[in-house]
Amino acid sequence: MDGLFAIVTLLVLDLPRPLGSPHLTRVLLHQWPSYLADLVSFTTIGLIWIEHHGMMSSVRRIDRRFLEISLLFLLIVSVVPWPTALAAEYATHGTQARPAAVLYAGTMLAMGLAFTLSWRYLERHNELIGEAAAPAFPTGVRRALLGTLAYMIAVGIAFVSPLASFAVDAAID
Amino acid sequence: MDGLFAIVTLLVLDLPRPLGSPHLTRVLLHQWPSYLADLVSFTTIGLIWIEHHGMMSSVRRIDRRFLEISLLFLLIVSVVPWPTALAAEYATHGTQARPAAVLYAGTMLAMGLAFTLSWRYLERHNELIGEAAAPAFPTGVRRALLGTLAYMIAVGIAFVSPLASFAVDAAID
Amino acid sequence: MDGLFAIVTLLVLDLPRPLGSPHLTRVLLHQWPSYLADLVSFTTIGLIWIEHHGMMSSVRRIDRRFLEISLLFLLIVSVVPWPTALAAEYATHGTQARPAAVLYAGTMLAMGLAFTLSWRYLERHNELIGEAAAPAFPTGVRRALLGTLAYMIAVGIAFVSPLASFAVDAAID
Amino acid sequence: MDGLFAIVTLLVLDLPRPLGSPHLTRVLLHQWPSYLADLVSFTTIGLIWIEHHGMMSSVRRIDRRFLEISLLFLLIVSVVPWPTALAAEYATHGTQARPAAVLYAGTMLAMGLAFTLSWRYLERHNELIGEAAAPAFPTGVRRALLGTLAYMIAVGIAFVSPLASFAVDAAID
Repeated sequence: MDGLFAIVTLLVLDLPRPLGSPHLTRVLLHQWPSYLADLVSFTTIGLIWIEHHGMMSSVRRIDRRFLEISLLFLLIVSVVPWPTALAAEYATHGTQARPAAVLYAGTMLAMGLAFTLSWRYLERHNELIGEAAAPAFPTGVRRALLGTLAYMIAVGIAFVSPLASFAVDAAID
Repeated sequence: MDGLFAIVTLLVLDLPRPLGSPHLTRVLLHQWPSYLADLVSFTTIGLIWIEHHGMMSSVRRIDRRFLEISLLFLLIVSVVPWPTALAAEYATHGTQARPAAVLYAGTMLAMGLAFTLSWRYLERHNELIGEAAAPAFPTGVRRALLGTLAYMIAVGIAFVSPLASFAVDAAID
Repeated sequence: MDGLFAIVTLLVLDLPRPLGSPHLTRVLLHQWPSYLADLVSFTTIGLIWIEHHGMMSSVRRIDRRFLEISLLFLLIVSVVPWPTALAAEYATHGTQARPAAVLYAGTMLAMGLAFTLSWRYLERHNELIGEAAAPAFPTGVRRALLGTLAYMIAVGIAFVSPLASFAVDAAID
Repeated sequence: MDGLFAIVTLLVLDLPRPLGSPHLTRVLLHQWPSYLADLVSFTTIGLIWIEHHGMMSSVRRIDRRFLEISLLFLLIVSVVPWPTALAAEYATHGTQARPAAVLYAGTMLAMGLAFTLSWRYLERHNELIGEAAAPAFPTGVRRALLGTLAYMIAVGIAFVSPLASFAVDAAID
């Protein structure tokens, strides 16, 4: 759990700290998109960490290829705060909401694909997983696939209506 | 302990480093609120880490719901440096001390609530804790509840007298 | 894997986030060297982490000297994002591409040397490695040496043609 | 070792990256105090980590008081990059070299004191250490005490001659 402790601390460490403002409350309320973005990033990465923790708890042994797939997955996870911050900044910026929504849903889709890939790899190499864990696999793969499909739809919607796409994103979480 | 090592290092890494100043001592002394805030954040998170470590040492198994409660708790812990920095900046800023004091005591209260929630969840699901640890539980829950109540009072006081509220916060630690 | 999770998150956390731009897509596309540098740093450090993980999995015991060699190796690994960012910034800057290419290939060479040193130290102190792992050692040392030689050539080429040197770097990965 | 990997990466991540400079080599050479400071911080924290790792390897059980002493020690360790950066910046700034040298040697002295305290606490509570490790204790305590005394002298010298004090610091390492 220390790993989660460390990551999560870093995400929030750079919350904006207005200096010497005569209207602290107003300034803080005005910066809500920044706080919202950090909250969403935190929750997203935290929930992914829990899912990943669940998957890893049934893994008995790791091979090099699985490490490489994990690296790809982690790359995408680590990118999450970036489209999230852009989405918070641009969601209410008229025409610029579209690229932000496409980028956000696209990142989530890529993450879903990489996570599905991890599950599938483990399913096909059952020498890597403990015998007790094997029956849980179809459920895990199905959940990862469904999430991926849902984000695929969210990417499509993002081109038409950015706000509807964000609503779909929120519903998937 | 490596986890603590990592977090703690990050907190202090961004101490202000005045460049090419002709009066280094004076500049450093002038920045004391910033150093005080880092010291308080460090100590607070460190002591929380020790409390959390104590709680976790009696846990034998973890379930998904407990991970989610922990995530909520960690979210609040990770926010701590932010109201602490605002408190250090605004404690002596007249009217702006009030929102800073409310925010600080409120964060601490939220942390106390989440920690109490963790204890209560473990107490009710004793399949998660080792048998040897069970007798220690009432004490843990009581400490967490008392801390939470004390911060509730500190939030109330913060609306009347910000400095008195900070004094109560310090006494609770 | 939590350690990797933490490092990797940090690398990408500071992707540029343009504020209130009226041309979000164009601005993002314009910043591609910065994204490319983070992607390359991420992949490089991730692959090194996998190699290092492979080496460590055959280590049974650690002595003080091995920790010092590891410290040197980690120092160089941690420097990687810096020449990578400079390379992305200066690769297309005419005469300034040369120092950037020399610095990049030189960092990689230093990393290869430190990694070879780690392997050689373990090979000579076989009380530190498990018996089952011993046969894998000649392969490990040879791979580390070959990589080091290749980067030596890349440093040489960097003085003549920076772009050719980057191409060699990419081929070695 | 993942913990070390994480910390160390963070230290060097913020090396200055000059943008679009027409004289990259000259700019980089000009920034040597910044690089030197990072190298010294890295080496100092790395060597402390090795010492601390050596101490912890003989610890069998941890109590609350020992965690609190460790927290104090870690607080000082995490501060190290800050006086190091100030020392690199002010060592050649005439009169301002004195406060920088006092601050640097003072931080090192505080770290030595906290480390000695850790060793002494373990020595007096031998229920916390494994039996095999007990004979190594007098050596550990003596080394920690000697280092502390040496830094005490370095603090004294810093008031008279900052550069001589830095030379003593380097000799102690």
